[in-house]
Amino acid sequence: MPTAGIAIIGDEILSGKFVEENAAFLIGELRALGVDLRRIVMIPDDLEDIAATVLDLSARFDYVFTSGGVGPTHDDVTIAAIAKAFAKPVVRHPELEQRVRAYWGAKLDEPNLRVADIPEGAELVYGKDQMWPVVCVANVFILPGVPPLFRRKFVDIRDRFRTEPVTIARVYVNADEGAIADDLDAVVAAHGGVKIGSYPRFSEKDFKVMVTLEGRDAGEVAAAFALLVERLSDRVVRTEQPAPAGA
Amino acid sequence: MPTAGIAIIGDEILSGKFVEENAAFLIGELRALGVDLRRIVMIPDDLEDIAATVLDLSARFDYVFTSGGVGPTHDDVTIAAIAKAFAKPVVRHPELEQRVRAYWGAKLDEPNLRVADIPEGAELVYGKDQMWPVVCVANVFILPGVPPLFRRKFVDIRDRFRTEPVTIARVYVNADEGAIADDLDAVVAAHGGVKIGSYPRFSEKDFKVMVTLEGRDAGEVAAAFALLVERLSDRVVRTEQPAPAGA
Repeated sequence: MPTAGIAIIGDEILSGKFVEENAAFLIGELRALGVDLRRIVMIPDDLEDIAATVLDLSARFDYVFTSGGVGPTHDDVTIAAIAKAFAKPVVRHPELEQRVRAYWGAKLDEPNLRVADIPEGAELVYGKDQMWPVVCVANVFILPGVPPLFRRKFVDIRDRFRTEPVTIARVYVNADEGAIADDLDAVVAAHGGVKIGSYPRFSEKDFKVMVTLEGRDAGEVAAAFALLVERLSDRVVRTEQPAPAGA
Repeated sequence: MPTAGIAIIGDEILSGKFVEENAAFLIGELRALGVDLRRIVMIPDDLEDIAATVLDLSARFDYVFTSGGVGPTHDDVTIAAIAKAFAKPVVRHPELEQRVRAYWGAKLDEPNLRVADIPEGAELVYGKDQMWPVVCVANVFILPGVPPLFRRKFVDIRDRFRTEPVTIARVYVNADEGAIADDLDAVVAAHGGVKIGSYPRFSEKDFKVMVTLEGRDAGEVAAAFALLVERLSDRVVRTEQPAPAGA
């Protein structure tokens, strides 16, 4: 299963000026695509911090997605930071420059051209949008921070990340978490390929704990599900049968 | 200004089973308290990952807040991970054990006692709740992942983090970001103590870019604000005068 990390870049998120939307969106997208999201890091517009964080994520995971810091102003340092991370200079891409000039025409301001400045050797990844590609360095896909643009650009290229989804089942239990810990341990021991999550909730009327069972092997998830339901017996309030996740 | 990092621990966040609420809440709280939030990391229930991440945050920042992984089930490994990070054994705290036994009485299940297991030498931090303290190791405050509990426990101890808030002003501009980049650069050059953010928006009716000016020195923020408004002149749609942030 391919893995992924996300870097959310921008003072505005950490200081609460804007509510984070892009990681929240990508969580659902990656799940539906069958990509295993392992880490989200939210950091300021700081060149050194971005460079170190992106390089670390790039080494750990198959795909890295960055959000933010790619506009034309002084606080947009993501491109320079990612270039630094991969020891490349930032160069003005002739084809992109041409498109920026064509787009703005006589209204062009010099800083607008900065969006044509990318790390040397970066790949331009095209979806249906043949005008504005996603810039990709190694396994790092560089996306804009403004939420509608972020979503549009990711959706445009997402098919390349699609793989087999996981199977998930849920069991809603009317018992305290401590009272079912032994039962969960028994299922964990019997089915190592199934990841079991236990989530107490205090404001639900009909259950106290939601248990999730997830795995790539639909048969093993079904077996673990059956074992757990049998063990918990009449403490089970309701279930959601094994089915593909995130679809 | 004290700095802070947040570690959000739990497969359920990264896989989208639950929407993240605790970092979102803490962003606003820390801002209102005058604490500079520098990094949020969201990671799975993985002992090694939690240990390394928490230790890293602890070394970088004045305060670290963790959310999640402190219940009685197999996937709750935060306490063990933080103990490992600081090279301490996990010990059963006699006073906490007594309270757990008193609370559950005859209904006690053995796994419930795990909430009395904490890293050796951990500090018990009390607010108004004299029954259930927040466990703190070095500068790491360990909070539960269930959102109502997380909020209640943080609010209970938050006064100890309070400091002077920053001053913030906002300028809403009817011009493209590229067209005002030079003006922003000029203000950045003249007022090094003021942090300037530039946020393009494409779905607002009356402005194209929101510019924020922030700093500890209210006088310098006011001077930077005046300079920017003067330079942008009739491109300014409206402003929010310098005032304490997050209040």
